[in-house]
Amino acid sequence: MSDFTKITSRDNSLIKLVSQLNNSGRSRKEHGLFVIEGLRLCRDAAENGFGFTHLLVSQTAMDKYGSDIDFLYEKAERAYLLSDSVFDKISDTKSPQGIICLVKKEEKQYEICKKGRYIALENISDPSNLGAVARTAEALGIDGIILSDNGCDPFAPKSLRASMGALLRLPVIICEDFVSVLGGSGLELYACVLAPDARSLTDVSFSDGCAALIGNEANGLTDEAIAICNPITIKMAGRAESLNAAVAASIVMWEMQR
Amino acid sequence: MSDFTKITSRDNSLIKLVSQLNNSGRSRKEHGLFVIEGLRLCRDAAENGFGFTHLLVSQTAMDKYGSDIDFLYEKAERAYLLSDSVFDKISDTKSPQGIICLVKKEEKQYEICKKGRYIALENISDPSNLGAVARTAEALGIDGIILSDNGCDPFAPKSLRASMGALLRLPVIICEDFVSVLGGSGLELYACVLAPDARSLTDVSFSDGCAALIGNEANGLTDEAIAICNPITIKMAGRAESLNAAVAASIVMWEMQR
Repeated sequence: MSDFTKITSRDNSLIKLVSQLNNSGRSRKEHGLFVIEGLRLCRDAAENGFGFTHLLVSQTAMDKYGSDIDFLYEKAERAYLLSDSVFDKISDTKSPQGIICLVKKEEKQYEICKKGRYIALENISDPSNLGAVARTAEALGIDGIILSDNGCDPFAPKSLRASMGALLRLPVIICEDFVSVLGGSGLELYACVLAPDARSLTDVSFSDGCAALIGNEANGLTDEAIAICNPITIKMAGRAESLNAAVAASIVMWEMQR
Repeated sequence: MSDFTKITSRDNSLIKLVSQLNNSGRSRKEHGLFVIEGLRLCRDAAENGFGFTHLLVSQTAMDKYGSDIDFLYEKAERAYLLSDSVFDKISDTKSPQGIICLVKKEEKQYEICKKGRYIALENISDPSNLGAVARTAEALGIDGIILSDNGCDPFAPKSLRASMGALLRLPVIICEDFVSVLGGSGLELYACVLAPDARSLTDVSFSDGCAALIGNEANGLTDEAIAICNPITIKMAGRAESLNAAVAASIVMWEMQR
């Protein structure tokens, strides 16, 4: 039988740490850890080579998911059994499944591949959008996601959940200097803008070695980013002034791979 | 100067009503009212012929948006000036702008147009997805949205906000019996499914008089809905098993209008 340390108090320091990691990007950075919750996401992470420092399981989950928990136990440095009420306190979901892992945030250093097709997000602020973009990127066979470092955190619980784990599987490249990294990448760059005189997306022939840039939900791309790109636009009818950022990114990725 | 009734107590019955309308679809149905918040959405609704029973304005908004509030005042049956702290209690947003209208839920009876191109959502459960689909539908010039009546409420604050008002502008047709309404509509019907042997979306030539059906986020379309449709699929690479429902709908609408 596996060796689990029992936690029954909400004041336990590990419980406090998990709450901090769930709620604060600064805490994730400081500790070099992030939280994943749910069997599916934890299995995904384990199968993609992520190491777990801690496995936390509720009593109910222990009774229900025995063999799956054995698998995760093998990947974790330390394992803890929590009373259901303590688990509920740290869960980030409405109906907790009862399984959380803390994962080492070893940022894999991915290189931009000169033949790759990328989606690049500048200062995306909504983790649900980031997650949806990653989920779509993986589904459509995009080679990776390039992010400016001032956007929302790809390791935030909401981002990871909305991505259905794609953020743990896809190459994610976070750039301190987004514009110069892309400018020096050798990729053909396309900026998605709202300007009606920009080239229509349907008139672009994407070829290997390209990236499409999508900007912040409220403000779009910066002038510096647009300056190094071919501006393209999704022609719109009706009175809508713009598309949701994840939708715009998805339509562009669809055309890149069509 | 306009005639506003002052409200300074959180126990005021109108304040309680607004909270109920924000949080409960049953309450919206019972009272035949829904809530819209923010200057932009309220102006949009007024310009689209919606009548307001109540206009509620915070003291700060009154000082800041005088002329805009005059415009809304003309459209409203009754007007109220709220202390900022009372307004904060009923606001559904993090940074309230200070303007709320209660709108009569007169469901306009739209007919399905035989030459139209529609997106049809069966039991969509996430208001953010419904809103994003409406926003995209409007932007791409889709003729309307057909909804089963068991999904999330298009008049919920989250749906309206995510749609950027498109749900107030687009024809929205809510069907008690989704499958028979569509089956009898005369439209060419396409069911978006995950079956790898379904026809690829890129092989479909959409013509006037069609609808694409998207199912529930977790369970997809019902067998009854699929049975009356041509099954089509968005071919996927990688390990993703599905797309976010709003993203799938957006890609399909893009192809319908491409």
